[in-house]
Amino acid sequence: MNPDYPEDHPRNIIPELCRLYYNNGWMPGSGGSLSIKYGEEIYITPSGVQKERIQPEDLFVQTSEGEDISGPPSSKGLRKSQCSPVFLNIYRLKGPGAVFHLHSKSSVLASLLTDGNTVHLSNLQMIKGIRKWTTGGNHKFTDDVQIPIIDNTHTEDGLVDGMVKAMNDYPDTCAIIVRGHGIYAWGQTWQQTKLVCESYDYLFDIMLQLRAAGIQEIR
Amino acid sequence: MNPDYPEDHPRNIIPELCRLYYNNGWMPGSGGSLSIKYGEEIYITPSGVQKERIQPEDLFVQTSEGEDISGPPSSKGLRKSQCSPVFLNIYRLKGPGAVFHLHSKSSVLASLLTDGNTVHLSNLQMIKGIRKWTTGGNHKFTDDVQIPIIDNTHTEDGLVDGMVKAMNDYPDTCAIIVRGHGIYAWGQTWQQTKLVCESYDYLFDIMLQLRAAGIQEIR
Amino acid sequence: MNPDYPEDHPRNIIPELCRLYYNNGWMPGSGGSLSIKYGEEIYITPSGVQKERIQPEDLFVQTSEGEDISGPPSSKGLRKSQCSPVFLNIYRLKGPGAVFHLHSKSSVLASLLTDGNTVHLSNLQMIKGIRKWTTGGNHKFTDDVQIPIIDNTHTEDGLVDGMVKAMNDYPDTCAIIVRGHGIYAWGQTWQQTKLVCESYDYLFDIMLQLRAAGIQEIR
Amino acid sequence: MNPDYPEDHPRNIIPELCRLYYNNGWMPGSGGSLSIKYGEEIYITPSGVQKERIQPEDLFVQTSEGEDISGPPSSKGLRKSQCSPVFLNIYRLKGPGAVFHLHSKSSVLASLLTDGNTVHLSNLQMIKGIRKWTTGGNHKFTDDVQIPIIDNTHTEDGLVDGMVKAMNDYPDTCAIIVRGHGIYAWGQTWQQTKLVCESYDYLFDIMLQLRAAGIQEIR
Repeated sequence: MNPDYPEDHPRNIIPELCRLYYNNGWMPGSGGSLSIKYGEEIYITPSGVQKERIQPEDLFVQTSEGEDISGPPSSKGLRKSQCSPVFLNIYRLKGPGAVFHLHSKSSVLASLLTDGNTVHLSNLQMIKGIRKWTTGGNHKFTDDVQIPIIDNTHTEDGLVDGMVKAMNDYPDTCAIIVRGHGIYAWGQTWQQTKLVCESYDYLFDIMLQLRAAGIQEIR
Repeated sequence: MNPDYPEDHPRNIIPELCRLYYNNGWMPGSGGSLSIKYGEEIYITPSGVQKERIQPEDLFVQTSEGEDISGPPSSKGLRKSQCSPVFLNIYRLKGPGAVFHLHSKSSVLASLLTDGNTVHLSNLQMIKGIRKWTTGGNHKFTDDVQIPIIDNTHTEDGLVDGMVKAMNDYPDTCAIIVRGHGIYAWGQTWQQTKLVCESYDYLFDIMLQLRAAGIQEIR
Repeated sequence: MNPDYPEDHPRNIIPELCRLYYNNGWMPGSGGSLSIKYGEEIYITPSGVQKERIQPEDLFVQTSEGEDISGPPSSKGLRKSQCSPVFLNIYRLKGPGAVFHLHSKSSVLASLLTDGNTVHLSNLQMIKGIRKWTTGGNHKFTDDVQIPIIDNTHTEDGLVDGMVKAMNDYPDTCAIIVRGHGIYAWGQTWQQTKLVCESYDYLFDIMLQLRAAGIQEIR
Repeated sequence: MNPDYPEDHPRNIIPELCRLYYNNGWMPGSGGSLSIKYGEEIYITPSGVQKERIQPEDLFVQTSEGEDISGPPSSKGLRKSQCSPVFLNIYRLKGPGAVFHLHSKSSVLASLLTDGNTVHLSNLQMIKGIRKWTTGGNHKFTDDVQIPIIDNTHTEDGLVDGMVKAMNDYPDTCAIIVRGHGIYAWGQTWQQTKLVCESYDYLFDIMLQLRAAGIQEIR
């Protein structure tokens, strides 16, 4: 922790979560990106770097309108995350306190095991960790939770249109999977976003292990 | 370790085990809950929080009759674990020194791979780590160890009836699986409870990996 | 490290390896046991305890004839590993510098996936880490390495007869698997024993993952 | 970190990466080897030792022509990595800033699941982390990335001929898999080499998990 900032400041939390997510395999090979809103400022990780080595001063800061407030020392030669337009689009449309983009294998595998455009989850307790974004409250474990899958595009900003459509079609979702790529997830706070990411990863992995054991559906 | 308490006090042991169980995937996304009896006091984790960040002062303390002895500073806004009635029911009926509730994937998968209401384990050495709660002593590795599975309910306290029935039907068990949800396990001490949780997780995972390799039964 | 002993003294190395092997899943739920020969003394872990918490003073010390030299403070109430007769038998017959007994899932699964009494490994580079104990030198990667499997018994000392026969039938082996139970492995030093355990675990796991992907044999 | 050297000196980076790669299973049982070019000096790990215990002074230093510049203290009795001729051959032909050789299970399994002499990867975002070595730039996620597989040989220097042919046949590749053995990968810097190794491991593991779930090809 850098004592120059409060313990829960994005300049402390983001580097800590990047180390956690590198170590658990969600941010391999510079993949993935985190953003947290703090007051009116949105803190975003830099692009193309070893995520586990990110320092507090390496973050870019923007308004939710996409205006730059500050950035890392130019001597570091860092570039803003290519996910920035996707993050800002989610902040504008859904109003969360944090948006994470992770390259977790479980989200990629869930999208590749599904022919359609939705991952379905049901009859698992951890579903209760998933918030119904628009109608409010959390899911029951018996709900049929649907996570939309959108097609990948060659650049991150190309994802925006697909994400807008997915958010319209599934207004209660707090996550969108990009096929063969990873997951975008959001919550009211960074803590809720962290919890929801852990819940999805757990749920997708249960689904995958059942498939490997020859079971197609959870009753 | 907080030096204000003895090394083996629940205020030291519970936060340490929560970090361990978060890191090994048994307490993802705020899931799971731990309780340890210390003298006549039962220490219980708070609800809905990041388990790996629990501090010694965050625990709730109750009598085995369910009366509140103390709780965390109210400024923290913590709620008692929803598992408390389930824990207290087990303390009353079985008299253990600790009861743990874990969302381990292995226990969830074991319940989903089983059509009936019992997971059977046999011909594995780690079965010897499982105590026969009522008749006493530990199992032989050749025993047919049966772990009852009960159906999940929408609230944790709804589990009590199913658990009472399972404890009656399987008086020697020291664990009950909740389908699609997780495991409750107990032991005479927190150390024995920790060991039995590790043994079950290991045994369930062996069973799962054999299934994935196409083997249905251990001879 | 306890500075009262040299860095490579068994009282430093054994607790360190126990923590490593607890964390990688080879010593779950108090399972497994380690022994290292240091001069004429054989240091052995205690029985039935959390292996990751073993302290330097917790070890039992014996001669290779099985006479007790020293033990942990009696106030700790520790018991010598039940593996001691098995360890001593291997020290007498094979003359190694260390013998480890591990409950690694990979060794248990390898024994359960095999109908016969031998695990066969071939065409994998890590085979070169396996020493031919009697004829000397290490295996070529194209060798058909055979690791004998013996049946489990209700007590550890019941394993001795099966192990003597396996050592006679497979004089070059430096490991024996106990079906559904775990592995005993030895080397000329603790370092070699550590390396050979890692090599077997890696090789068995490759075999298991291939099986899960539908491949029965490595060409 | 050893403060006698700059933070990014190979004598600091190589021991740090060896610990990382031991812990994630890429350098089990003394397997694997790392090399980094620093100015005109190439730093190489010693052979046959526990990689997680390598110290800054344990490295061998050579010119790219293979002349010895310096080595570890002779009292340590260390031998140069047997991979040295393979490393030097890659430095001469491809001009990278670092070459890593890893025994990652994912690379071994990828080679064993493939009948032909190439692993194909496509439709996965992490492909964008792979550089086209000769034609420049990084792959698109829709590219058909081909990683050549060569046959294993009894000594590491026997691999050179196969690797020269593979580099000629696949001029854009920055990695070669040795069947049943592991991977050689390179990048313009040690950071790029680390990232590319993480990308391949992730991609191969996705492929393997899909196979285990019954899916042969990614659409």
